[in-house]
Amino acid sequence: MDARLLKKIEAIVSAQHVQATKAALLAYSYDATPNFQALPDVVVAPGNVQEVQALVSLCAEEGIPIVPRGSGTNLAAGTTPTSGGLVMLFHRMNQILELDEENLTIRVQPGVITEHIHKTVERAGFFYPPDPSSMKISTIGGNVSENSGGLRGLKYGVTKDYVMGLEVVLANGEVLRTGGKLAKDVAGYDVTSLIVGAEGTLGIVTEILLKLIPLPETKQTMVAIFPSLEEAGSAVSAIIAEKITPVTLEFMDNGTIRAVEAHAGIGLPVEAEALLLLEQDGAADQVVKDMTLMAEVCRKHGAISVQLAQNEVEAEQLRLARRTALSALARIRPTTILEDATVPRSEIATMVREIQRIAQKYDVLICTFGHAGDGNLHPTCLTDVRNAEEMHRVEAAFAEIFEVAIRLGGTITGEHGVGEMKSPYLEWKIGPSGISVMKAIKLAFDPDNIMNPGKIFAKETKKRVVLANG
Amino acid sequence: MDARLLKKIEAIVSAQHVQATKAALLAYSYDATPNFQALPDVVVAPGNVQEVQALVSLCAEEGIPIVPRGSGTNLAAGTTPTSGGLVMLFHRMNQILELDEENLTIRVQPGVITEHIHKTVERAGFFYPPDPSSMKISTIGGNVSENSGGLRGLKYGVTKDYVMGLEVVLANGEVLRTGGKLAKDVAGYDVTSLIVGAEGTLGIVTEILLKLIPLPETKQTMVAIFPSLEEAGSAVSAIIAEKITPVTLEFMDNGTIRAVEAHAGIGLPVEAEALLLLEQDGAADQVVKDMTLMAEVCRKHGAISVQLAQNEVEAEQLRLARRTALSALARIRPTTILEDATVPRSEIATMVREIQRIAQKYDVLICTFGHAGDGNLHPTCLTDVRNAEEMHRVEAAFAEIFEVAIRLGGTITGEHGVGEMKSPYLEWKIGPSGISVMKAIKLAFDPDNIMNPGKIFAKETKKRVVLANG
Repeated sequence: MDARLLKKIEAIVSAQHVQATKAALLAYSYDATPNFQALPDVVVAPGNVQEVQALVSLCAEEGIPIVPRGSGTNLAAGTTPTSGGLVMLFHRMNQILELDEENLTIRVQPGVITEHIHKTVERAGFFYPPDPSSMKISTIGGNVSENSGGLRGLKYGVTKDYVMGLEVVLANGEVLRTGGKLAKDVAGYDVTSLIVGAEGTLGIVTEILLKLIPLPETKQTMVAIFPSLEEAGSAVSAIIAEKITPVTLEFMDNGTIRAVEAHAGIGLPVEAEALLLLEQDGAADQVVKDMTLMAEVCRKHGAISVQLAQNEVEAEQLRLARRTALSALARIRPTTILEDATVPRSEIATMVREIQRIAQKYDVLICTFGHAGDGNLHPTCLTDVRNAEEMHRVEAAFAEIFEVAIRLGGTITGEHGVGEMKSPYLEWKIGPSGISVMKAIKLAFDPDNIMNPGKIFAKETKKRVVLANG
Repeated sequence: MDARLLKKIEAIVSAQHVQATKAALLAYSYDATPNFQALPDVVVAPGNVQEVQALVSLCAEEGIPIVPRGSGTNLAAGTTPTSGGLVMLFHRMNQILELDEENLTIRVQPGVITEHIHKTVERAGFFYPPDPSSMKISTIGGNVSENSGGLRGLKYGVTKDYVMGLEVVLANGEVLRTGGKLAKDVAGYDVTSLIVGAEGTLGIVTEILLKLIPLPETKQTMVAIFPSLEEAGSAVSAIIAEKITPVTLEFMDNGTIRAVEAHAGIGLPVEAEALLLLEQDGAADQVVKDMTLMAEVCRKHGAISVQLAQNEVEAEQLRLARRTALSALARIRPTTILEDATVPRSEIATMVREIQRIAQKYDVLICTFGHAGDGNLHPTCLTDVRNAEEMHRVEAAFAEIFEVAIRLGGTITGEHGVGEMKSPYLEWKIGPSGISVMKAIKLAFDPDNIMNPGKIFAKETKKRVVLANG
């Protein structure tokens, strides 16, 4: 970046919040997505909305791309500076601004760590349900931009369901305020929901108003072990058919169980084909009732063992085991590619079987875990980017996984976002008219394409995979 | 409408589904909003999505405005044919297409009556919570286009929270399919949420996929009578502070109580200043616990009487009493103007007091009822459109009510929509940058402005009311 521009940026945020050394640019050239990298021109940390506005105005004038970035845990190359430009950090905008106990809301800046919100509201007897696996390091701004999900999505929904209002800096430097502490508001289009999950392509979120709910009275955690995928899958369907909505209904296949056990050593049965982690929260008596019924259903559908966590320490160990699935798997081979295909809940067992078939077909190692209750699976490929031939097979395998997911009524991404990585597949899900509409929205918000360019929309859609039975 | 165009329309849907007589045009020249009327040129009832596409393409070619209309219960002049054109009816597209018990979804055409959905899913043990007061006659297509709320919004949210996917005919005649049977889906922008509540200005909804939840085990209903508004207001706050989320927490002031009692004769105390209707649903023991605690809270906050409905007949009578508040009030004077100002829950008591102050200031008769639990009030003015001087005062009073609502962190419309009626006030809520963004979205979807033109966006924003303390 030339000295004249650097000077202008430093005049906005002061030199100490501007980084342009080779090392710094390298550090922000990638996120948690393997095989995607691009150098930014400058890394800037604004301290307030006025500084964000000034930076956006400058970038608009000079045609500089802006890539907003939380903690960089993105798994779809959503925060790589694909076209260079300015990476905007939010660690200086990390304050909880207001906890409103009367209206059950919390107002926060985008740089607040998600788990910090959980802890703050739980101390006051409230609950913020969205819990992406990265919550210990991810920022709420990142969660909002990606519409992050998590383990509690089945019962409580995703980030979008809790965003009541936003402050957003638009591409023209203006500030837009949407929503409010309002359970009902139909004053014009739902711009809030449009910004949530837009991956920073429509504007920069500078303040977030979140809905809270009362903290459930109690919670119980249980693990059920199954000798086959089919039995685990049928147990999931049967639980839903009993009209129970557990807070968590997580799945791990054998490969994931082995990896987690090797990593965490908490006594998971490494021979088991499938494991379900089940949790229910609510009033104590209701929780006991639901857990008892779920245990019964699991046994009836072939569970070898069903074990209730005896205390919160045991429960947290199990939850943590599930949350560390990705890092445990990542130790096996040099490169870990985590996918996010999602299907209607009724198709979970079929989808897991299909993933195994596809892994065999392309001779790649894929372990699968994920949110069985809401159909959101994470087939995870353990591979090595340095092996071009293998990577070719990995890519072909994932393309087929997306194709199958869509054929089953699913989507290419449940909670990780499109980013740069999945943009060539977006049209498979939403069709050409969907692409046109979304591009028109993008153009309406950001006519000069400075807001996280190169994300969501691909230069070219991938050729679709022809399925034998498709 | 000239014969050439009529012929073209008849070629699409056949003559029996086209109305162009003076009587027909008059019948569709207004909706439930007083004082708004405009004649359409033709009234057409397509039978399927292909016919909708063909009609939209014809209208696009000929520059004819299209006004989609359900049962015409709109209260913000959202379905009046402001600029003439084609009124599109959906009574031929009134089928329930699929109840998917495994994925807890129902797929319906836009012309299905809302209550028919309730009855269908409840028979199978499921629950579709949104329950606008008009649900016995309103269509689900209208509910989606207005993002309708209802009495159960506090606990269960509004229509938007249950729309999982849509089929929409765009202004260019293309079909867009959004969403799916997916609890998690972040494949691009949330176009579904954008179409919900867009009042037919972005496209025509031709199919709707709704989320269902398990039917709560049981439900109880209770009425609490208060000698003052303040006491009723403080009871509402105290219930929320106890971290109870009742399914319904409805409010009526004295004027509404009198009107409802005169209409329904179910023994409501006509001397009471305020009445709360409280309901809880869920597991039987939890419901009893919550109802007992709410009864205690009401008594502690000055309730003169707290009465639990002894059976479903009594409960339904009370609910019906609340639902008929509008028709009861409508009997008092020739014209009824129902408003929809919404404030944060903590401001309910202040807002009701302010409405009374404003009614006195402008010497107009306003009764207030509404959803106390979610801050969505319906101040209802009983007046006479033939009295121009009085109508002038009514308008001034409502402008001040909107101004106060916004000052309290509220909005100009909670669940009725902007339509033509509230368009001059929209900028008060969302600001000039909000208007620009929404207009840009509208332009992106409908560059020739044929989709329900004249709604949401006003030619001119009303001058804001200067408040003494504002």
